[in-house]
Amino acid sequence: KNPVHGNTSYCLQQTSLTAFGNKYESITELDFVRNILAPVLKATIKEAGGINLKEILATGIQMGDELHGKLDGTRSVFVSRLLPHIVKTDFDKDTLAQVGEYFNTNPGRWYGGNLMMASCKAMMDPAKNIEYSTIVTAMARNGVDFGIQVSGLGNEWFTGPAGTIIGYTFPGYRQEDSTLDLGDSAISETRGFGGMAAPAAPGHARFIGRDFKDAIERTKQMYEITQTEDSLFQIPYLDFIGVPVGIDIRKVVETGILPVINTGMAHKDGGHPMIGGGRADPPMECFKGAFVAFAKKYT
Amino acid sequence: KNPVHGNTSYCLQQTSLTAFGNKYESITELDFVRNILAPVLKATIKEAGGINLKEILATGIQMGDELHGKLDGTRSVFVSRLLPHIVKTDFDKDTLAQVGEYFNTNPGRWYGGNLMMASCKAMMDPAKNIEYSTIVTAMARNGVDFGIQVSGLGNEWFTGPAGTIIGYTFPGYRQEDSTLDLGDSAISETRGFGGMAAPAAPGHARFIGRDFKDAIERTKQMYEITQTEDSLFQIPYLDFIGVPVGIDIRKVVETGILPVINTGMAHKDGGHPMIGGGRADPPMECFKGAFVAFAKKYT
Repeated sequence: KNPVHGNTSYCLQQTSLTAFGNKYESITELDFVRNILAPVLKATIKEAGGINLKEILATGIQMGDELHGKLDGTRSVFVSRLLPHIVKTDFDKDTLAQVGEYFNTNPGRWYGGNLMMASCKAMMDPAKNIEYSTIVTAMARNGVDFGIQVSGLGNEWFTGPAGTIIGYTFPGYRQEDSTLDLGDSAISETRGFGGMAAPAAPGHARFIGRDFKDAIERTKQMYEITQTEDSLFQIPYLDFIGVPVGIDIRKVVETGILPVINTGMAHKDGGHPMIGGGRADPPMECFKGAFVAFAKKYT
Repeated sequence: KNPVHGNTSYCLQQTSLTAFGNKYESITELDFVRNILAPVLKATIKEAGGINLKEILATGIQMGDELHGKLDGTRSVFVSRLLPHIVKTDFDKDTLAQVGEYFNTNPGRWYGGNLMMASCKAMMDPAKNIEYSTIVTAMARNGVDFGIQVSGLGNEWFTGPAGTIIGYTFPGYRQEDSTLDLGDSAISETRGFGGMAAPAAPGHARFIGRDFKDAIERTKQMYEITQTEDSLFQIPYLDFIGVPVGIDIRKVVETGILPVINTGMAHKDGGHPMIGGGRADPPMECFKGAFVAFAKKYT
């Protein structure tokens, strides 16, 4: 919920099944999420009277998170904020202990992404439908197309082919096993996180197979295609400059610089967990298409 | 407890009273620690079968902590690790909620320091009493003297005058209000944390009034006076180089480079909370004194 503008957003509780299609092994996780995690979180957040996600994300970016692929600090802060309230719910000890274990073990990696995606959407939606605005309000991809929405152009999607994900694959998988760029998590780059803020997470920059210096260079370029720096989310490694936010289709088309997307890899055949992570380039076509539509609408 | 060497260390539960002498306002905190926090933590750690502090510290240094003055990531990870076990203790909901609130509010700033100090001491003690070793095994100061112990020289303290703390004071206080360098927390620098690992925490480098570049230069110098890099505790900002560890009195005397100490400021008149933080230089006298004693003992 965005308390300033009154709008609300939602996100699926990500699991290895709902995010990456690993149906063979993760029905157990889905059952746990539906029957235990979701009710406990609901009661905890009610008990807390709400949790300030913006504060948690702003703290996380100070802790080595770029807030798309890396959310370790964010998750730990989230768990700290839950503690005083989760203990007040009426669930039995073993149920709460299971939730605590989930937060501390590998499957728990997703819930940071849920907070991030829903709050990015809640933060970006008020920027929609502003007349004459050339700012990108959403980016998403489905493994075939990559699409953007632009403020002054309403809900229309402008698309181009989804990019290849170049990065790191977990042992047992190869890059050729990956789908093309896939998912709705690029709302984080739309908000100035993820690839846009990559130097906030040197560990992640290394994980996805690029060096840290390259991440710095690419993020510095992002200020050339965005509207402003957001001082609420500061990148420690870049002398606390705010993340680049407000991708402007005019600047993208003019400079030829594309937003940087950090993302996870799903297996193209399904039935597998996440198989790696990397970086994918959006297609220039969607920015050009939006630019043409903008010129047509406003001239 | 050091499971490899079998030794054990202890640390006071720090509060504004026990660490900085704020007796007027913090009796309440001390009561809370004695009557609620300590018993809950004891039961939680027993339930968990122990908590791996080294893992928590190693994670924390990846989250923007230099592990002496800044422990925000470390604390959050610690709370995450406690959650599955604290909910299984027999305390009532309100008691556990109070502990959770303590972890999330300002007074909670200390407990990260407790973990760090006791575990640094547990890690350094096995390095004591090694014949011919010129490695510093402890540094501590009492506001008048700064002292070191050296492995090959047993439990003898070598001292010099405590330094001035130069850094940032909280609103309402001036640097002249501070004691000289004070406390036993310099065990963190002895272990390669704190000032020795300052670039791990750009936020803290800014807080104590130096720029980040200066912190990087000073830590790079620390490799000239130490034995090795400890790859378990990597500094993300320095391309994941391990922290400098094993201060060697020969190298200190030869190069004239002193270990960097990060520390908090206590008010010289007492009755106040922590009044700021900064950096203090140890006196060269104690290293020279130890060097002379070493030459005398071993020649």
